[in-house]
Amino acid sequence: MSLNFCFIGAGNLATHLATALNEKAGKVTQVYSRTEDSARLLAQKLNASYTTSIKEITSKADIYFVALKDSAVSEVLAEIDFQDKLVVHCSGSLPMSVLKDFSSNYGVLYPLQTFSKTRIVDFTDIPVFVEANNLNNEELLYTLARKISGKVTILDSARRKSLHIAAVFACNFVNHFYALAAGFLESQDIPFEVLHPLILETARKAQEMPPKEAQTGPAVRFDENIINDHLQALAEYPEMQPLYNLISRSIFDHHQKK
Amino acid sequence: MSLNFCFIGAGNLATHLATALNEKAGKVTQVYSRTEDSARLLAQKLNASYTTSIKEITSKADIYFVALKDSAVSEVLAEIDFQDKLVVHCSGSLPMSVLKDFSSNYGVLYPLQTFSKTRIVDFTDIPVFVEANNLNNEELLYTLARKISGKVTILDSARRKSLHIAAVFACNFVNHFYALAAGFLESQDIPFEVLHPLILETARKAQEMPPKEAQTGPAVRFDENIINDHLQALAEYPEMQPLYNLISRSIFDHHQKK
Repeated sequence: MSLNFCFIGAGNLATHLATALNEKAGKVTQVYSRTEDSARLLAQKLNASYTTSIKEITSKADIYFVALKDSAVSEVLAEIDFQDKLVVHCSGSLPMSVLKDFSSNYGVLYPLQTFSKTRIVDFTDIPVFVEANNLNNEELLYTLARKISGKVTILDSARRKSLHIAAVFACNFVNHFYALAAGFLESQDIPFEVLHPLILETARKAQEMPPKEAQTGPAVRFDENIINDHLQALAEYPEMQPLYNLISRSIFDHHQKK
Repeated sequence: MSLNFCFIGAGNLATHLATALNEKAGKVTQVYSRTEDSARLLAQKLNASYTTSIKEITSKADIYFVALKDSAVSEVLAEIDFQDKLVVHCSGSLPMSVLKDFSSNYGVLYPLQTFSKTRIVDFTDIPVFVEANNLNNEELLYTLARKISGKVTILDSARRKSLHIAAVFACNFVNHFYALAAGFLESQDIPFEVLHPLILETARKAQEMPPKEAQTGPAVRFDENIINDHLQALAEYPEMQPLYNLISRSIFDHHQKK
C-alpha cells in the first residue's frame, strides 16, 4: 500500500526530506507553506499540489509531516483538523508531546543533518531518529525511515534534545568559526580557500579518532606566548578576541581534567 | 644536486614534513630530538641517523629545519653553530626574525595542516607558505616547497600570523567543539558516531559556499525558545553553558551586521 504525505513547511529540511520520501517511501501529494515561492518550488519538484492557505490543507493524506520553525508549530497546527491522522514533526528540540492536542496519532522523525536547498545530500547516510505515541505508529515511522536511511534509531524526546545540543556545537558553532576565520582572512587579503584542506582534515580526523585525542594547537599545549600574541593581534577584532580567550581556556581546562 | 637536511624536532609536524621532503626533495640525514624515542622513530622511518645531544648535531647539512615548540626555538638554536647554513623554522606564529641571530641565511616553511603521527596526509594538497631573508633563499625554499606541495605561496611573517589565528579558529577550536559534543553525548549514552555525517557535511559545505551563507541552527534564526531551552539543559555542564551563550550571541550579531 502506498502512503500519501502532506508536507507542512517547505524550507531546507522539508525540501530534502520530502524529496527522499517521495522517491522511496510513498507520494507527497501536497505542500503547504506560508511563502508561495517555497511552496510552489517544492511542489513542482515533487509533482505535487501546493497551497499557502491553511484552510486548504488536504484532509486525505495518510501522514502529515510538520517541518516548520519550532516556534510556529503549535500556532499553525491549531488551525488544522487532522481527523486523528498521523502527525509527525521533524524538530530536534521540540518534545513529541507538543503534538498531543492535535491528533491521537503522532510522532517525530528527526534527520540529523544540516540542509541547504542548493546542496544535494545522500539521505541513506543520514542518521534518522524516530519516536511515536504508540507501538503501531513507531513501527510505521521506523519502517518509513528505513526506506530513506540506513541509520534509523528509536530515541525519546529528552535524548533527542541532547543530540540537538551536541549538533549545535559540532555543526552550527563550528560553521560560525569557519565564518569568523573567513572574515578575518578577508580583512587581510588572504583567500579563505587556503583553509579548505585544514577544515576537511579536521573533520575527517574526528571520524577516525576521539576528537579529544586529536586536539592540536597552542591552547592544548598552553603555549602562553602564542596565546597572548594572538589575543593582542585580535585587539581590533572585538568579535573574535573574547571567543579566543574563552575557548583557549576551555581547551586547556578540558585537557587538564583528563 | 641533492640537498641534505637536518631536522631539529621530531614531533607531528616534523614527522610529516621530513617524510615528504625525504621522498621528493632531498635526503634527511639526521634527526635531533630531546626525546630519544621520537628521534629514533623518525630517523628509522627516514633511514637517517639521530641524536638527542645538541652538540652532536651535524655540521654537514645544507638546510636545518626547526620544528620545535615555539617557546623552545631560541633556547635550542643558541647552542648550535650553523656556520651560516640555511636555517628554516616551520611555525605559523613565530616571526622569521627570531632566526636572524643564528645564521645569515634563514627562512620559514609553514605547512597549513593539522598533523597527527598516526594519520597519513597527502602533502601535495597542503598549502605551504614560505618566507626568506633574501631572494636566493626565497627561491630555494619556494622550489623545495613546490616539490612536496602543489600550493605554495610567499607570505610575510605578519600575514602568516593572521593565517595561524584563522587556523586556530577553523581547526583547533572546531575540534574542541567536536570533543565537547562527544563528551556530552557520552554522558547521555549516545555514541559520538551519530554526528559523523553532520561533521563531514558541515566541513564539505564550507568548501563550496561562503560559510556565512551556510549558517543554520537556532542562533542564526534567533529562536529564543530553543536557545533558552538548551541553556537550561546545559545547566549541569558548566564547561558548555557559557560557550553556548557567548557563541549564540556571536552568531546572531554576526548575521545582524550583514
